[in-house]
Amino acid sequence: MVVAELSPSYTKTSLHSSQLSFFSSRLSDHRRISLPRPQNGRRVVCSVASNQVQAPSPVQTEEAKTKGDCYGVFCLTYDLEAEDETKSWKKLINIAVSGAAGMISNHLLFKLASGEVFGPDQPIALKLLGSERSLQALEGVAMELEDSLFPLLREVNIGIDPYDVFQDVEWALLIGAKPRGPGMERAGLLDINGQIFAEQGKALNAVASRNVKVMVVGNPCNTNALICLKNAPNIPAKNFHALTRLDENRAKCQLALKAGVFYDKVSNVTIWGNHSTTQVPDFLNARINGIPVKEVIKDTKWLEEEFTEKVQNRGGVLIKKWGRSSAASTAVSIVDAIRSLVTPTPEGDWFSSGVYTNGNPYGIAEDLVFSMPCRSKGDGDYELVKDVIFDDYLLRRVTKSEAELLAEKRCVAHLTGEGIAVCDLPEDTMLPGEV
Amino acid sequence: MVVAELSPSYTKTSLHSSQLSFFSSRLSDHRRISLPRPQNGRRVVCSVASNQVQAPSPVQTEEAKTKGDCYGVFCLTYDLEAEDETKSWKKLINIAVSGAAGMISNHLLFKLASGEVFGPDQPIALKLLGSERSLQALEGVAMELEDSLFPLLREVNIGIDPYDVFQDVEWALLIGAKPRGPGMERAGLLDINGQIFAEQGKALNAVASRNVKVMVVGNPCNTNALICLKNAPNIPAKNFHALTRLDENRAKCQLALKAGVFYDKVSNVTIWGNHSTTQVPDFLNARINGIPVKEVIKDTKWLEEEFTEKVQNRGGVLIKKWGRSSAASTAVSIVDAIRSLVTPTPEGDWFSSGVYTNGNPYGIAEDLVFSMPCRSKGDGDYELVKDVIFDDYLLRRVTKSEAELLAEKRCVAHLTGEGIAVCDLPEDTMLPGEV
Repeated sequence: MVVAELSPSYTKTSLHSSQLSFFSSRLSDHRRISLPRPQNGRRVVCSVASNQVQAPSPVQTEEAKTKGDCYGVFCLTYDLEAEDETKSWKKLINIAVSGAAGMISNHLLFKLASGEVFGPDQPIALKLLGSERSLQALEGVAMELEDSLFPLLREVNIGIDPYDVFQDVEWALLIGAKPRGPGMERAGLLDINGQIFAEQGKALNAVASRNVKVMVVGNPCNTNALICLKNAPNIPAKNFHALTRLDENRAKCQLALKAGVFYDKVSNVTIWGNHSTTQVPDFLNARINGIPVKEVIKDTKWLEEEFTEKVQNRGGVLIKKWGRSSAASTAVSIVDAIRSLVTPTPEGDWFSSGVYTNGNPYGIAEDLVFSMPCRSKGDGDYELVKDVIFDDYLLRRVTKSEAELLAEKRCVAHLTGEGIAVCDLPEDTMLPGEV
Repeated sequence: MVVAELSPSYTKTSLHSSQLSFFSSRLSDHRRISLPRPQNGRRVVCSVASNQVQAPSPVQTEEAKTKGDCYGVFCLTYDLEAEDETKSWKKLINIAVSGAAGMISNHLLFKLASGEVFGPDQPIALKLLGSERSLQALEGVAMELEDSLFPLLREVNIGIDPYDVFQDVEWALLIGAKPRGPGMERAGLLDINGQIFAEQGKALNAVASRNVKVMVVGNPCNTNALICLKNAPNIPAKNFHALTRLDENRAKCQLALKAGVFYDKVSNVTIWGNHSTTQVPDFLNARINGIPVKEVIKDTKWLEEEFTEKVQNRGGVLIKKWGRSSAASTAVSIVDAIRSLVTPTPEGDWFSSGVYTNGNPYGIAEDLVFSMPCRSKGDGDYELVKDVIFDDYLLRRVTKSEAELLAEKRCVAHLTGEGIAVCDLPEDTMLPGEV
């Protein structure tokens, strides 16, 4: 076991050597120590490069153990309140990202760190969750975050145990999921990923902020979110989201293309239901330049037969053209989804999110995670939009997606604490281009 | 040959059907037409989906031909001056990006489009340059840009001919370069990439804005930039940059780590010379909390023997850990480099850029692209910083990098119009992890 010695310049900080603890041996290089909070409640952390590590007796603290492993320059002491440029900043927020070594995260983390999501006065701590296999890659990501010198990014921790990584997080962006193996059906995927999200739900329940907002991106995201919230009974179910924002964005783009208008003219687009091929991009309530879409796009056949397919095939077309899945635009849609919760929704508009059905005004079955139209005051919370209309066509399709989600729920009963799972998923409804 | 018919909703725009032209057959899907500028000078473009394409007689215009191929929703009509939200915006700027289907661009393009580089009131037109081989991938990138619904991103064109793509561009971010083949020396790389940059220089000279700012990222970037500017005699040589900002950022991070301070406390870091292993991260003039680095970090041996290596090995370590090269942090450093030219440099600080030596105050050989300390008023231009000091150690190393750049220049004389090339590059000075 090795212990830390302060580097010469260290005396310039207010760090006390008695606060030193020795570090976990989990990480291979550039390991740093988390230090216990000093009496005044401000967190102080210390930097030791591995070649400066020597003698004295280790002081292991409980808190250092549960904080996960801070990385490199992000273990350094700072005091935001002592600096002119930073003293007006908000309180640091902790954001966990799972699947942190993957391609979506590789876009998302840099957006979070740059300030474009939470604003220029919101310092950020990133908690990166990976797997044993991806730990080296996580260090690579942390290195690139170091080299980017983002002023707002004050802490980066990496780890593989959600009980460490989710400690005190105010946001959990759950991107990591196992991809479908060869020949695997949605039911199989539900089971293997459901287990991950059950564990992560338990971890959030145990260690996250009591008002953590959870955004599930890993597929099948609606039912993963349901499993997650069922395993986190002490966190409000309303705080869990399944990402359908990329679908919404794609739907807006296709409506704009068809109408011959720029995409900023399209509003009030709802994605209803499951993030699968049963999802319903709603053109009945959508508007173009404030006018109902059906008054602008008179081609009903296109709306009813081609529009949804165009939205859903987007990922598949992209993989064919670009050879990769849509990491960049998925990351943008996660940013959009978060921003929609932390900034007030523009007057008269709404956004889609897969949220828990509990007293919803549309008659959708309760106790599901279902994508519906939401509005936010910008406080992180949302309310469902009431003034939407249904016709037979829309209702029939929403009902079909509801039936699928009910079937998915029966299929994961063993993971939600509701008895024995019964899987009767008739068809593969994974979206093209998704895994 | 096919020609365009307006979609039904098209009558809602102010487009005149006489402005229609038929489109190039270069792209396989979602092709759109660039239309000629109307009399009032405002550009009007039109959208046609391929399944709406039918009869009448084509009207091909010169301008449509030279504008390259606009993509999808970005071919739609809009009028920024007619909208409340956009009429206070600045004039649209055209930004070309080469290697647009590569990983660095996959990060950079979304940063440009989101507004985080040029600000929230600067509408953007992206001109994506790829190769025959990458054309499908370019379409994939354009699709993801469509699906991201960035309000500021108003036009996206894709193409493989720099004479099309560079038309009227105000920024040219030259990222694309051929990677080193197996066993290829720097001299070989200089030749094959030099030819690309000679052609791109000629194209910029012919069709770009007369004050275009050019940032060369593709390696070997200094000499590529020199070749480029020599082939563009009608564009001020001062407008050409070779990217050394990632090196500067990495140097700041390493100094911060060593000093035990957060990286925002490190300033005045110069990268001198070539973006290669002869580059000189300058700790003599650098400051930490405003104090000369050598007064903060007393470990001279570390500064002289380990610091530079740590900066230079960063890319190699990253590839080992993460399995990929540092696309994300490179893109961040390109953003930093652009921002440093379009926002005023903070009082007393500076930034590094590889720029043309022409009357430099340091006694560095003229007629090279050499990384030096710069300051900007934020107008896109820069001036060299005069108040830097040299000691024997720094001077010796700067001289070595200068010698290398002079040798590289002799090696590409056939591409700069200076006679017969003589290659006497003694060693491989590519940075670890770069291609």
